[in-house]
Amino acid sequence: MSRLRPSRRSHVAPFMAMEALSEARALERAGRHIIHMELGEPGAPVPRLVRAAAEAALAGGGLGYGEALGDPALRARIAGHYLTRYGVEVAPERVIVTTGSSGGFMLALLAAFDPGARIAVTAPGYPAYANILASLGLEAVPLPVGAETRFAPTAAMLDAAHRDKPLDGALLMSPANPTGSMIGREEFARICAFCADAGVVFVSDEIYHGLEYAEPAQTALAFTRAAIVVNSFSKYYAMTGWRLGWLVAPEELMRPLELLQQSLAICAPTISQRAALAAFDATDELEANRSACARNRALLVERLPSMGLDRFAPPDGAFYIYADVSAFTGDSMDFCRRLLVEAGVAATPGLDFDPRRGATTVRFSYAGAEADVAEGVARLEAWLSGQARR
Amino acid sequence: MSRLRPSRRSHVAPFMAMEALSEARALERAGRHIIHMELGEPGAPVPRLVRAAAEAALAGGGLGYGEALGDPALRARIAGHYLTRYGVEVAPERVIVTTGSSGGFMLALLAAFDPGARIAVTAPGYPAYANILASLGLEAVPLPVGAETRFAPTAAMLDAAHRDKPLDGALLMSPANPTGSMIGREEFARICAFCADAGVVFVSDEIYHGLEYAEPAQTALAFTRAAIVVNSFSKYYAMTGWRLGWLVAPEELMRPLELLQQSLAICAPTISQRAALAAFDATDELEANRSACARNRALLVERLPSMGLDRFAPPDGAFYIYADVSAFTGDSMDFCRRLLVEAGVAATPGLDFDPRRGATTVRFSYAGAEADVAEGVARLEAWLSGQARR
Repeated sequence: MSRLRPSRRSHVAPFMAMEALSEARALERAGRHIIHMELGEPGAPVPRLVRAAAEAALAGGGLGYGEALGDPALRARIAGHYLTRYGVEVAPERVIVTTGSSGGFMLALLAAFDPGARIAVTAPGYPAYANILASLGLEAVPLPVGAETRFAPTAAMLDAAHRDKPLDGALLMSPANPTGSMIGREEFARICAFCADAGVVFVSDEIYHGLEYAEPAQTALAFTRAAIVVNSFSKYYAMTGWRLGWLVAPEELMRPLELLQQSLAICAPTISQRAALAAFDATDELEANRSACARNRALLVERLPSMGLDRFAPPDGAFYIYADVSAFTGDSMDFCRRLLVEAGVAATPGLDFDPRRGATTVRFSYAGAEADVAEGVARLEAWLSGQARR
Repeated sequence: MSRLRPSRRSHVAPFMAMEALSEARALERAGRHIIHMELGEPGAPVPRLVRAAAEAALAGGGLGYGEALGDPALRARIAGHYLTRYGVEVAPERVIVTTGSSGGFMLALLAAFDPGARIAVTAPGYPAYANILASLGLEAVPLPVGAETRFAPTAAMLDAAHRDKPLDGALLMSPANPTGSMIGREEFARICAFCADAGVVFVSDEIYHGLEYAEPAQTALAFTRAAIVVNSFSKYYAMTGWRLGWLVAPEELMRPLELLQQSLAICAPTISQRAALAAFDATDELEANRSACARNRALLVERLPSMGLDRFAPPDGAFYIYADVSAFTGDSMDFCRRLLVEAGVAATPGLDFDPRRGATTVRFSYAGAEADVAEGVARLEAWLSGQARR
């Protein structure tokens, strides 16, 4: 009987965060209580106003195919958000509603780059980037970032990479996954200027915007008209499972993006679009979520050093702490597995984010409920106190 | 100011069905009453049971990220559907829930084919196929089909194309868009056998299953274990805007499919998955929809010939009539535009489906409400009676 051979490009690496989740769920089915610090998902439920808008949409009917670019009312709300939040004017015609930021990446990368294009991404970085780029025949050019730049990429790094061999694009995230670190305002401006000058297409992943704890995050739209901005309703707006995001792109890409969306996705989910119309009005609830994240963050920042985890990337935003665990292990995968089985705390080994240097780092998510994060911290502390230092 | 150059691969052709929709909507905004026979979307609303399941899901919460392969309960229901509907046993482990069939195509084609692979598709055929294939670096190999095979592809056609230059895959649909024609049972078996013998991966697009008016449609799963089946909740189940579909794939592709889904989509929309659990119980309502389609179809089959449209593909299934309009025009685009503006009936020029021969064909969708289709037929008849024959 013939067997089907998977394509070479389908040999993508599994996300260890997902594998960790599967292991954690297996332990839960066996009766164990697990604290989930592996997930990049808000612990807060979907905002009440969003749920009410979804209920109204269900009652009202008309949940068929929508326009490829998205519901005009939602595109207008998104455009308006840039004025309210950043003081930047964005025409609704430059907004396209996508099936999560995942769907946005596919469209943006297809519209802007041909096969063989070289795209700079940070290491550590979001592991799906490499897989998405490879799927589309694009080359990921890693920019190693570390403590010397607060784990943020710089215009100088892009310039050096570009001189080495020309880049076609840069796909950068601030606040970042897995580090939580942010690119400061001046450096952000330098990156935008470098990309515009060098003809490097800047794809600015802004999906953790709204989850900042000191300085506000910068949108590329404040500095350049040539960038493609990717955003999502999943993180700050707590709508993960609704699979809804958006792009803001230069006018000249809108028609290609529309046609790609027609063929590749038809449209983003209609009920999610109706629900998301209320997301920008749910500020009280969303800011309360952010305050809970901020308290979780403060707890970790205070307690990790006394456990021996005193080196981590500056947790400026998002809901992650990317900690150096080299005092305890040179094998972050084994470390996470034992932490899960022995202490009931799920976390993600750094190898997910940095195949070269991630053997001595772990990502802890503090997106969960405050009581859970507090319990996770207590378990981690008790468990680490019994671990040998290297 | 730098301008961003769209990629070469983003130069995809617009869907004329979508352009026709935009023109029709513009006329509606100007106060005209338009009959929509351009849309491949059921006129029926989402089934009551599905809406109730969505309401319950909203009330119950827990609408976060789901597993990449899909909700296990939904995967089991889908697997069970193959036993109920076709008498074929399918393991739930071979099912992956996707973001519409659109998301399913992306995953299936990425998992099975590397860039440069040659995939046979029919002409006329679904226009998104060409765009999806091009996006992923795959070559569409057209198989012209016509009246001599009832507009259905055959194993002999595949064999001839394969001898000409080896094929890697075949992406075929039965019932088909735009023709409505179906591949008969014996020919379907021959196609499956040919693909298995020749090592050609058969991707069987079964999204119009359930909408058949004479013989039942065949699933590739009844004939081969090596095919990839694509299906959707959009057509028979009337859930277009919910963006939900599924794949059934050979075991050896499931892990690649899972990893691709993790990176490219994370998961299908959670509320849509919860709602779709009820779709297989909504048989009464769905069969009533099908009966309405059958009556629409009978009306068109009876009335078109007397208007001078006496040649069309055998409308075995789906909700389309693909009619030869060469008695009236050699420019189907102009024909459709005048039909829209002068008679208020929107239809799709054949060029959407067959760039080479579609200048003398038009697709009429009869998915709409019975009263609308009846009105469309009356308007078409009146308008055609004033058109010169060529």
